[in-house]
Amino acid sequence: MTDTSTAATISEEQRAIEDTLVETVVASFEHASDPRLKQVMQSLTTHLHAFIRDVRLTEAEWQTAIEFLTATGHITDDKRQEFVLLSDVFGASAQCISVNNTAYQGATEATVFGPFFTENSPRIESGGDIAGDAPGEPCWVEGTVTDTDGRPVAGARIEVWEADDDGFYDVQYDDDRVSGRAHLYSDEDGGFAFWGLTPTPYPIPHDGPVGKLLEAVGRSPFRASHLHFMVTAEGLRTLVTHIFVRGDELLSKDSVFGVKDSLVKDFVQHSASTPTPDGREVGRTWSQTRFDIVLAPAGV
Amino acid sequence: MTDTSTAATISEEQRAIEDTLVETVVASFEHASDPRLKQVMQSLTTHLHAFIRDVRLTEAEWQTAIEFLTATGHITDDKRQEFVLLSDVFGASAQCISVNNTAYQGATEATVFGPFFTENSPRIESGGDIAGDAPGEPCWVEGTVTDTDGRPVAGARIEVWEADDDGFYDVQYDDDRVSGRAHLYSDEDGGFAFWGLTPTPYPIPHDGPVGKLLEAVGRSPFRASHLHFMVTAEGLRTLVTHIFVRGDELLSKDSVFGVKDSLVKDFVQHSASTPTPDGREVGRTWSQTRFDIVLAPAGV
Ligand SMILES: [Fe+2]
Ligand SMILES: [Fe+2]
Repeated sequence: MTDTSTAATISEEQRAIEDTLVETVVASFEHASDPRLKQVMQSLTTHLHAFIRDVRLTEAEWQTAIEFLTATGHITDDKRQEFVLLSDVFGASAQCISVNNTAYQGATEATVFGPFFTENSPRIESGGDIAGDAPGEPCWVEGTVTDTDGRPVAGARIEVWEADDDGFYDVQYDDDRVSGRAHLYSDEDGGFAFWGLTPTPYPIPHDGPVGKLLEAVGRSPFRASHLHFMVTAEGLRTLVTHIFVRGDELLSKDSVFGVKDSLVKDFVQHSASTPTPDGREVGRTWSQTRFDIVLAPAGV
Repeated sequence: MTDTSTAATISEEQRAIEDTLVETVVASFEHASDPRLKQVMQSLTTHLHAFIRDVRLTEAEWQTAIEFLTATGHITDDKRQEFVLLSDVFGASAQCISVNNTAYQGATEATVFGPFFTENSPRIESGGDIAGDAPGEPCWVEGTVTDTDGRPVAGARIEVWEADDDGFYDVQYDDDRVSGRAHLYSDEDGGFAFWGLTPTPYPIPHDGPVGKLLEAVGRSPFRASHLHFMVTAEGLRTLVTHIFVRGDELLSKDSVFGVKDSLVKDFVQHSASTPTPDGREVGRTWSQTRFDIVLAPAGV
């Protein structure tokens, strides 16, 4: 890990003053009646002060931070959540997902939820099409749902949602169309299949303070191309994840750190003349991928 | 220091996943063209992730934090700065002051600036009165300004400001009166004296998210009684500080952690019949304190 500390040059007297302040603030939370709130506030205090001391934050930088947070608050409304974006671009959202969906015996890894899920997606049968009128290259997705003992999971609810060829989700359209999302259920042997769209990249909203920050540090606002999944089944841990496209140049610089190696899949490209798995005539190039989903037990 | 960590129960596999994510986010700032920005962002990443992992922050808690920051942003405007209050109640403002005004050979300690300083305070001569028509008990303040070699500093500009007996600064009045603030200059031997008001306690604004947080953790929004100073002199480090009243029960629970032992002064109480130092007739009880100010060299 990069050593970002410059604190080694501080006198013992000064170090003691700074330590005492941290201890005083930590102690101020000692009488919180909720023990979890106390724990979280004390830990936050410790790490926040460690950051300030580590970089020897200047008063001008502190002022810049206050102004940044103020601007972040002011652009945030019912539709735009800049604090979530801020959490995303520091990988805090991804770390929180990781902490709450710990590795378990080969269970499929979780990743960030993102802001584009909606309730009440249309139901499709296995082999159906989620695209609606969203433009893009057809993509056949198939796989199985099993538990960590390899047993098929029948009747798992599989929600899938994705951006269209232009990088927009249906909720970003200026009408009420529902496209590029659906839910289906795994069959008796855990299998599922559907037609979606070959995933394409899109940027997170970058016309606000978070976008300015990304620009200042030379980072792209783009997300690696992905297809969202949420899989629920009784007695098993709900899985919120994506699959990514092997070969996508954005894999190594996903703006919100959602990529995990195990979630990168081969998307095989086919010519228009190649017969499709279900005999459907697509009349253009299409792609195909496989995603075998392994669900951990609930409560792990 | 309180051990707030619960991370010891995490598997090696999970720990490696979390470590990798931190390294990936740190690396994402590697190409920032401003080396200081890179350092600050990488350190912030490290400490933010350490916090999330330390407490194993739940997704519901993360959501609560997002909502808290959103509310903090929405109450903030040109007059109300809730992010500064948030920084204050975590002692972050005080720590930033400490880091930028390091201990130096007996120089007077700095403390938080607060939101109530204004430019263009009235000038008074030594021995004058800063109170204007602010109500309160008269308080005679006298002292000297010296450098850390004990040499008197003549002509130091001393800005003083304080709340009135009801806990309000003039800028909180509903008219444009200027009261409870002034500036004066140290004389040839570094001496100064003025009439102010015996300091009284007041709460920070606590009708917003920060007030709710203080209530949830059982903390008072009150500040210990204090009198603000800002002292500037050529070639010397500008000092922003307060003096506090020995015996104030709020000293140990100042809501913004501004209190330092060296800044707590004896405020001697006098009856109405005790002659005042300058012969002024005050016609009521009055108090008296001494504050000898030691300025560090500029640039330390
Ligand atoms: Fe997405
Ligand atoms: Fe104050």
